[in-house]
Amino acid sequence: MKSEIICIGTELLMGQTLNTNVQFLSQKLAELGMDCYYQSVVGDNSQRLNDALSLALSRSELIITTGGLGPTFDDMTKNIMSEISGIPLVYHQDSLDKILKSYTDRNLPMTDNNKKQALVIEGAHVFKNETGSAPGFAFKCHHSLVVVLPGPPKEMQPMVNHEVVPYLEQFMDARLVSDYLYLFGIGESSVEASLSDEILYSSNPSVAPYASVDHVVLRVTSKAKTLEEAQALNKPMVALLSDQFTNHLYSINEPNMAQVLVDHLIERSITIATAESLTGGKISDLITSVDGSSKVFKFGACTYDSAFKESLLGVSHDEIAKNTPVTAKVATQMALGIQKYAQTDIGIGITGVAGPTTYRDDKPVGLVYIAVAIKDDVTVKEYHLSRNLKNERQSIKKLAALHALKDTLDRL
Amino acid sequence: MKSEIICIGTELLMGQTLNTNVQFLSQKLAELGMDCYYQSVVGDNSQRLNDALSLALSRSELIITTGGLGPTFDDMTKNIMSEISGIPLVYHQDSLDKILKSYTDRNLPMTDNNKKQALVIEGAHVFKNETGSAPGFAFKCHHSLVVVLPGPPKEMQPMVNHEVVPYLEQFMDARLVSDYLYLFGIGESSVEASLSDEILYSSNPSVAPYASVDHVVLRVTSKAKTLEEAQALNKPMVALLSDQFTNHLYSINEPNMAQVLVDHLIERSITIATAESLTGGKISDLITSVDGSSKVFKFGACTYDSAFKESLLGVSHDEIAKNTPVTAKVATQMALGIQKYAQTDIGIGITGVAGPTTYRDDKPVGLVYIAVAIKDDVTVKEYHLSRNLKNERQSIKKLAALHALKDTLDRL
Repeated sequence: MKSEIICIGTELLMGQTLNTNVQFLSQKLAELGMDCYYQSVVGDNSQRLNDALSLALSRSELIITTGGLGPTFDDMTKNIMSEISGIPLVYHQDSLDKILKSYTDRNLPMTDNNKKQALVIEGAHVFKNETGSAPGFAFKCHHSLVVVLPGPPKEMQPMVNHEVVPYLEQFMDARLVSDYLYLFGIGESSVEASLSDEILYSSNPSVAPYASVDHVVLRVTSKAKTLEEAQALNKPMVALLSDQFTNHLYSINEPNMAQVLVDHLIERSITIATAESLTGGKISDLITSVDGSSKVFKFGACTYDSAFKESLLGVSHDEIAKNTPVTAKVATQMALGIQKYAQTDIGIGITGVAGPTTYRDDKPVGLVYIAVAIKDDVTVKEYHLSRNLKNERQSIKKLAALHALKDTLDRL
Repeated sequence: MKSEIICIGTELLMGQTLNTNVQFLSQKLAELGMDCYYQSVVGDNSQRLNDALSLALSRSELIITTGGLGPTFDDMTKNIMSEISGIPLVYHQDSLDKILKSYTDRNLPMTDNNKKQALVIEGAHVFKNETGSAPGFAFKCHHSLVVVLPGPPKEMQPMVNHEVVPYLEQFMDARLVSDYLYLFGIGESSVEASLSDEILYSSNPSVAPYASVDHVVLRVTSKAKTLEEAQALNKPMVALLSDQFTNHLYSINEPNMAQVLVDHLIERSITIATAESLTGGKISDLITSVDGSSKVFKFGACTYDSAFKESLLGVSHDEIAKNTPVTAKVATQMALGIQKYAQTDIGIGITGVAGPTTYRDDKPVGLVYIAVAIKDDVTVKEYHLSRNLKNERQSIKKLAALHALKDTLDRL
C-alpha cells in the first residue's frame, strides 16, 4: 500500500514546532510494511491544504493527515476533507458527550468552538481519542483511504497504537519486521565500513546503519506473508551482527540505555547510586526516568561545588587542590564515596569539563573521567568527548552520562 | 522569495531519524522573511529525488536541500543536482585538503569514498563545513536558487548561521521580525480565548499562539523594509501582551526557563541547591545545562530513597512514616534541609508521584509538592500534573521540574 503523510499546521512551516508526528507515523507505517514515499507539511491555509490533499489523492493509496482538528479558527482540516470528498460533516455523539462532560465535570462553561471538535465525515470509521477531545477517523475518498488524526502527539500516538494500527492491518497482505541493534561508542561510517558487501547489499533481510545523537542503529528488515515468517528471516542476520559488534552492542530493540541498565539491575537485585559533577544530575535523571527504577536507584549527589566532593564523598582535598577536580583519582574516590555513603552495590563517579569554557589548558572541554565501583572493584576510564563543536555543553553532558551507563552495563 | 525545503534520506521516511533540520531551517527562513510553503522528505532513491527536485524547481524561487552529501553509496544528492542542472561536479580543493588532513592527522588511511564529499557543482558559491567534511554550496538552477546542505545537524546548523544566512540576506527586500512571548502554566486555548478579536485578526504585527510540551508561545510578527522598522512595529504589541499575561510570562525570546532563572541568579549573585525526589535529578540537570550555572548552583541531592531525606536533609521520620514522603511538609523540610546543608540562598524541595503506578489511593500519579526556601521564607505549592495519559512518567518529571523553576522565578 503506497502511503504518504501530510502534517498540517503553519507552526510547522514557521519552525515553531518540531514535527515528531511524522517520525512516529513513519515508524508505524514501516512496521506495517507500508511503503511511505512522501512526507509533506502544509500550513493552515485552505487553498494550499486543498492542493496538498488533491495531489496526495492522485498518487497514494493511503493518506494519513495529522493536525487541524482543534477548536480554533485556523483548524480547517475537516472542512477541506468534506469539500474535496463531497461528504458532509456530522457530530460524533460519543465525542460530543465526552467534550460536554469534561466541561460540566470542571464546572466550566463550554465555548461553541469546542463542539466543532466532535465533527467527523459522515459514515467514517471513528477512532476515539483517549487523551483529548477531537476523535480521528478513516474514510474512503475517491480511490484512496484517508486517515485523519489529531495533531497533539499525546492524543495522536495512543490513537494510532490502539486503534489505527489494528484497523490498517486488515489491508495488508505482506508483513515487514524490523529488528534494531543499538550500538554505542562507534560511528556510523565505521559500522558501514566493517560490513561485508554481502550484508550491505542483501535484500531480504536488508541491513541498514543509521546514526542518531545517542547511538548507531543497525536495522535488519525482512518481508514475508506472516509476521512469524518475517521474524524467522531476521533471526540469523541479527545473530551474525550481534556477534560482529559485541563490544558496542547494548541492546536489541530497546533504544533506551537506561532502561537496559535498570532491567539488568532489577533482575539481579543490584542497587546503585551516583555522584555527578559535569553531568549535573543527567545520569540520575536518565535512570529515574525508567519505571521501577526506585527499586534499585537509591541516591544521587550532584556535587557541583567541589567542597561537597570532599565533605560528602571523602574525595581527597590534596588531590583537588593539586590536580583540580577533573582527574581519574577524583572520579574513583567519588564512585567509592557515593557507594559507601548510600550503601549500594554500585557507585558511579563522574567528573569532567562540560564547557563551553576550557577549565585549564590541560583540562580541555570534553575531558571526562568515569569510575564505576562494584563492591571493592573500581574501574576508571578517560574520555575525550569534545569534537570541536560550538554549544556542545548539553551534548557533552548527555554523551558523558550515556558513557557512564554503558561502562556500568559492561561491568555487569 | 517563495521557498521550500527538501530533506533527503530514507531514514526519515522510515521514521528512524527525527527531522530536526526542517524545523531549524524553517525558523531561519521565517526570520529572513522568506515564505516557506512546502516542506517535503524524499528517500535515497534517484528517481524520486529527481522528481522532488524537478517539482520544486517548477514552483519555488529558493530550494534548500539537506542530506545525501556523505561518503556512502546511498548519498546521491550532488549527482542528481548535476544531472538536472547539466553542470558537472568538481572537487573543492580546500575541502579536499581538509578531508585529507583529517586522515593524516589521525594516521588513518583515507578510503576513496571520502574524497567524494569534497565534490561541488562547478561555479557554485561554497559554504565551508566547520564541523565536518562535506561543504555546502549554492547555485542557480534554471530559474531557482538551490542551496545544498549536509544532513547532520551539527554540520548544517553552524554552516547556516555563519554562512548561509548572510548569503541569503542579499536577496531580501523586506524583513520579518518575530518576538516570542513564552508562557508557562496556561493552555493554548485559554490563551487564544482571552485574546481580543482585534489582536487575533491583526495583520502587521500578526499574533499567533502555539503550544509546545513545555510552554505556550505567543508569536508577534511584523514585516517592514528594515529590521529596525519591523522591530519597532512589534514593540507596542509585545508590551500589551506582556501586560495581559504577566502571571504566566517567564520570558520574551528565551524559551529555556532554566536559562532565564540562571541569568537572574547570576545577575544578583544568588546561590541555589536542590533536593529532588520524583524529578530524580531533572531540575539540577536543567540548571547545570546552562553555561555559567556553576557560579550559582552548588549542590543537588536526589534523595530517591527516603532514608536520605531524613539523614541528609533532616526531614522528620514521623512525617514520612505517618503521612508518606509525598506531603507539603516533606517538600518544605527538603527545601530548608538542602538550603542549610549546601549553605545556599535558595533551596528547592520537590516530592511527588511520577507514576505510572499510583503510590497510594490518596497519592495519585501526578501529585507533586514543590517548596522554595529563600532565607527563612518558604512557600510550598501542590500540583496535580496527571492528565490521565499513558507513559507519562517522563512528562510528569519534566513538567514538575519546570514548575519548580517557575515557582523559583516567581519568588525572585
